[in-house]
Amino acid sequence: MKALSLKNQNLTLCNTLSQPRPASDEALLKIRLAGICGTDLALLKGYADFCGVPGHEFVAEVLAVGDGVNNDWLGKRVVAEINQWCGKCEQCLRQQYRHCQHRRVIGIREHQGAFAEWLVVKVNSLHLIPDRIDDRQAVFIEPLAAAFRIVEQLQFHTYQEVLLVGAGRLGQLIARVMALQEKEIKIVARYERQRALLQRVAASCIDETEVKPKSADVTIDATGGEPGLLLALKATRPQGVCVMKSSFPTPLITDLTQLVIDEIQLMGSRCGDFTHAIAALEKGAIETESLIDGTCLLEDYQAAFTLAQKKGAMKVLIKPR
Amino acid sequence: MKALSLKNQNLTLCNTLSQPRPASDEALLKIRLAGICGTDLALLKGYADFCGVPGHEFVAEVLAVGDGVNNDWLGKRVVAEINQWCGKCEQCLRQQYRHCQHRRVIGIREHQGAFAEWLVVKVNSLHLIPDRIDDRQAVFIEPLAAAFRIVEQLQFHTYQEVLLVGAGRLGQLIARVMALQEKEIKIVARYERQRALLQRVAASCIDETEVKPKSADVTIDATGGEPGLLLALKATRPQGVCVMKSSFPTPLITDLTQLVIDEIQLMGSRCGDFTHAIAALEKGAIETESLIDGTCLLEDYQAAFTLAQKKGAMKVLIKPR
Repeated sequence: MKALSLKNQNLTLCNTLSQPRPASDEALLKIRLAGICGTDLALLKGYADFCGVPGHEFVAEVLAVGDGVNNDWLGKRVVAEINQWCGKCEQCLRQQYRHCQHRRVIGIREHQGAFAEWLVVKVNSLHLIPDRIDDRQAVFIEPLAAAFRIVEQLQFHTYQEVLLVGAGRLGQLIARVMALQEKEIKIVARYERQRALLQRVAASCIDETEVKPKSADVTIDATGGEPGLLLALKATRPQGVCVMKSSFPTPLITDLTQLVIDEIQLMGSRCGDFTHAIAALEKGAIETESLIDGTCLLEDYQAAFTLAQKKGAMKVLIKPR
Repeated sequence: MKALSLKNQNLTLCNTLSQPRPASDEALLKIRLAGICGTDLALLKGYADFCGVPGHEFVAEVLAVGDGVNNDWLGKRVVAEINQWCGKCEQCLRQQYRHCQHRRVIGIREHQGAFAEWLVVKVNSLHLIPDRIDDRQAVFIEPLAAAFRIVEQLQFHTYQEVLLVGAGRLGQLIARVMALQEKEIKIVARYERQRALLQRVAASCIDETEVKPKSADVTIDATGGEPGLLLALKATRPQGVCVMKSSFPTPLITDLTQLVIDEIQLMGSRCGDFTHAIAALEKGAIETESLIDGTCLLEDYQAAFTLAQKKGAMKVLIKPR
């Protein structure tokens, strides 16, 4: 099958991989559409030392299932949770599947990804896509769930001032989720296009220089870079919360003394519950079409990644066939 | 008056300072007894660039008050909150006095401290000491309030496994506070004497090598050093909380990626509400006498600091006269 292959930070189109076969608890998926995420760009720079087929934002069709799986899945349009859990470890027994101690992560850790014609995943990680959500919306389910994660972790109605740093791929989705909570937030948006896209959600955009130190009850860094996190931390009020949405490919040098003196909570935030994202898209409550910069065939992956790496770029989609 | 004076990391006994005079909202205190804290030892190494009289754990008697102050305070035995607040800034208007934007901190920032015969503080920071608390107990009110702060910040009944790293001055008090919550915790205690002192609170002591990675719902670093924080972080379960009780004199180099991947909350914790500490001591619920290593006169400050700097040392007290 055709697939993109990452090895030693080198991405190539590969034709030699054979079509994968599902085990008894797995499904064989035909990828319909996939999206390039900031994490994919980090993988290319060496993040997580990933070697294999990248890609974890996708919508697919179930082509075949293993022995132990209900045949009703066949032909269904689905998305899959990126964390493939074991079901047996302490975290799984606590039903914290996304934090499974033995998890493999689609296209990120010990699991092939979706920039390919076919992909095998565990059936317990599948979610059915309602008809009202088209493929171009469905590719946003995974990152949108990550945006909703913040609302799962924090009770936003208890906070007054919220500052989001970063208005890229993830920042735009977080802004849309916050608008849904009827929460007015300030957003540090660097590029004119990011600001224009945020007008749809009536968010109040500010410049980095306008950020008031120690002013926000909650700050969220969605820039994917250290300067963004430091700006968010600086803007966090004493006893406030600073949410880290980005994992960095390199270690940070950070003076944590301020965390103690100002009693700040630095809170990591990763994947969210897909059902929230699916429900919001089905209701038409979240707009995503304006965030698509283009769609490329798998063969045109170089153009796709070049487009995705441009400053201020939004979502670039890849169509395997 | 006699006082210890810190300048360029050099501590001396000084006789040239004049007796301070209280402004209209202040009180002149005669220091009865003061304690040496880990922060004092850090100040000697350059933390906070403090220059002046150190010392912030103390019990005192009110000798005189300013024009605007009720005379009933005269002769009373008191402790003072170390944060001297302005009462006018945004934090003060939110009644977050300990985070006052313009605060001066007794013996730590822009305010003389208690290793002196006399000290002037704002009357609104004073707490009366009940008769049932003697001076040797009262010097523990400030650090005990810092230990209680954790219970103010986290609902411990919602967590199963709690690990405290460090059984020094602050760790011992935290262990006592946790015992009061009827919370069984594990404590990483390095020295035999620390373990012996913990037997009074029936805490379960373990060795560093026995710490299970990602096992505790809440971890607390009270070691005052980077290795302790890193051990606590390592032991924090996904979605758990790691409490930082120590501010470090030097910047840390930390890879924060794990915070995001495991969705950990890194939570700073500083000063607490004195009333909790006073109530616990008055009820006899917290034992402190065994934590006192010795009492020195102000003139013998070098012996006092040498004793306090010994590995595994507990509280050393200083008596100004």
